[in-house]
Amino acid sequence: MMSIVRPTLLLDKEICLRNIAAMAEKAKSKDLIFRPHFKTHQSAVIGEWFREFGVTAITVSSVRMAQYFAKNGWDDITIAFPANILEVDEINALAKQIKLNLLIENLESVEMLTKKIKSSVGIFIEIDTGHNRTGIASSKYFGINTMLDVIRANKKFSFKGFLSHTGHTYLAQSKHDIYNRHFDAVLKMKALKNYYKREFPDLILSLGDTPSASLCENFSGIDEIRPGNFIFFDLMQYQLGSCNFEDIALRLVCPVIGKHGSRSEVVIYGGAAHISKDAIINIDGKRLYGQVVINRDGEKILLDERNYLYKLSQEHGVIRTTIQAFNNFNVGDLIEIIPAHSCLTANLMGSYLTTEGERIKMMNCDFDDQSSNGSSSSNLLTASR
Amino acid sequence: MMSIVRPTLLLDKEICLRNIAAMAEKAKSKDLIFRPHFKTHQSAVIGEWFREFGVTAITVSSVRMAQYFAKNGWDDITIAFPANILEVDEINALAKQIKLNLLIENLESVEMLTKKIKSSVGIFIEIDTGHNRTGIASSKYFGINTMLDVIRANKKFSFKGFLSHTGHTYLAQSKHDIYNRHFDAVLKMKALKNYYKREFPDLILSLGDTPSASLCENFSGIDEIRPGNFIFFDLMQYQLGSCNFEDIALRLVCPVIGKHGSRSEVVIYGGAAHISKDAIINIDGKRLYGQVVINRDGEKILLDERNYLYKLSQEHGVIRTTIQAFNNFNVGDLIEIIPAHSCLTANLMGSYLTTEGERIKMMNCDFDDQSSNGSSSSNLLTASR
Repeated sequence: MMSIVRPTLLLDKEICLRNIAAMAEKAKSKDLIFRPHFKTHQSAVIGEWFREFGVTAITVSSVRMAQYFAKNGWDDITIAFPANILEVDEINALAKQIKLNLLIENLESVEMLTKKIKSSVGIFIEIDTGHNRTGIASSKYFGINTMLDVIRANKKFSFKGFLSHTGHTYLAQSKHDIYNRHFDAVLKMKALKNYYKREFPDLILSLGDTPSASLCENFSGIDEIRPGNFIFFDLMQYQLGSCNFEDIALRLVCPVIGKHGSRSEVVIYGGAAHISKDAIINIDGKRLYGQVVINRDGEKILLDERNYLYKLSQEHGVIRTTIQAFNNFNVGDLIEIIPAHSCLTANLMGSYLTTEGERIKMMNCDFDDQSSNGSSSSNLLTASR
Repeated sequence: MMSIVRPTLLLDKEICLRNIAAMAEKAKSKDLIFRPHFKTHQSAVIGEWFREFGVTAITVSSVRMAQYFAKNGWDDITIAFPANILEVDEINALAKQIKLNLLIENLESVEMLTKKIKSSVGIFIEIDTGHNRTGIASSKYFGINTMLDVIRANKKFSFKGFLSHTGHTYLAQSKHDIYNRHFDAVLKMKALKNYYKREFPDLILSLGDTPSASLCENFSGIDEIRPGNFIFFDLMQYQLGSCNFEDIALRLVCPVIGKHGSRSEVVIYGGAAHISKDAIINIDGKRLYGQVVINRDGEKILLDERNYLYKLSQEHGVIRTTIQAFNNFNVGDLIEIIPAHSCLTANLMGSYLTTEGERIKMMNCDFDDQSSNGSSSSNLLTASR
């Protein structure tokens, strides 16, 4: 009986359910709305696993993803990605069907949006609490006010509150560093609430990111969390201290296709087409794409980090091993790779196989046409505005 | 008229045809079999573009890809990836339908294969000419002979010759370095031909990689080339000197969603879910994921490398710009990113839009089930052998 013959994303449903339960419980105990980010799994089937823990509202990172989950029964969705004005037709259509929240981080977007919006949408203003990717700094009251002026002036808009992705926790050097970055973000967000709560007594403060949602305890004043990665976890989260090893739910199962004793290297079928090139830094200072679990006499053994996936081409992965461990690999074996970054690995693979043998598809292959319509203009760079 | 509203892979068919024509012409002038690698585009439609240049035999990097192209009318396929014994059932089925060549790089694989092969297959022995990924060193005659013993002993096998991927040309520091690495590989391969040609007078020497196929002129003794990337090219190839800028056929069109003047950064909808995290090193020593083309007054302008895609999260891309260039970006614009690595970018996107407006799909979404069958064993790591 053989079921896996090529790179396959193996998902432990039991671990996922445990991870969801823990996060749902934590949110509940701190009186936080739990609006998990579904970009991590991108799957309608896995989405359903959240329902038994009382989840009714979700976060996604694109209009496409919102369409996909709306089609699959989710009717309260925040697109936690700055509103892309070019997708306004799809936003209008979607907002007719479900409760849709958009993210605004600059005046230009909201000004363009106000001219084209036809359905009612909730609006969050994105705050940059230190991640320096998107969002307006919490201290820029003038900028925030000019956006709020536009939001107030359009009855289709209802201002929901302030949202931040404290993604700089991923760059933290220690757990304490994560606490500090989180606490700093909490203070910045609370200052905004204090300033605006008279006009908007129901405004929501929403924080994202798995490291702080997993590790931190102080959410005073915060109303909502939006972690995503926690359902799978990965080596990056383990290195940050967000999880234990046994909380990692995702593994890429790969066939061994070659061994090179002179270099102490094992080659697997499993490359950059299957596993993310996102890496963590290993003890030897090199990029580590995954750790390795082998099967010896029916027992699964996690090899230490001297044995790791260190090179990826499109289909090949190369594992560097110790001389001792090298002999545990045989051509034709299946081994498991624990990925450095699970979200992007899942995104590449497009489907899961659960440890119970269920095949689960992701949204990737659900859309026939990536464009809003099939036509093309003579100058494709000219968008109508 | 608006056709693109989200990250879209724009393909210039005219450039592709020119690139194919040039490589086909070069192969012909040097009396080489031209067996292009289709892992770059992974598309049946694009595959057809090669036919008018006389291409009848192709290279792929997986059994799945061989199945896909066999289904789409290709009947002479080399899987230039070490034979994965776990896929032997699919290999047998495929080899019944088409001329299939497999790659062998170690004794274990060929010994397992010989027990299970049911259809006739061609066998290449993979030679490591310095890339140090897979293949046996050309000097290891004893190892090569033990593999040949197994190949000779099974009438299903017909020995085709020696194949090498001189992928270490990608690490070359200069054009001369590429010439040197290529010439060294040619010498190693020719030595094998001299040694084995008495027994196998028709044996083929096959070389891969786009840099040497594009740049080098000395293919004396070589019989076949298998470049792939040359149809699209990319910044990596441009940096190596394999192509000119105007030979790059692929661009990721992305909406601008934010601008951050204090950091001189522009944020686009287009992240690691859309463009490969493979990078080249920029003039500032930083990782560069893509260069930027903007549209000013209807004219496309390529910005210099001080303006580049330097940060990728799942959906966000961040472009670092000069202060001068910053003002040329507007929220709601579409810009074009020329990727550092086109193969992996195409692999992520799953479909193309040609400059003529044709939507072209890739193989990714063509398979319902990534496993050979739906069943699962109680211990998924136990493969039957």
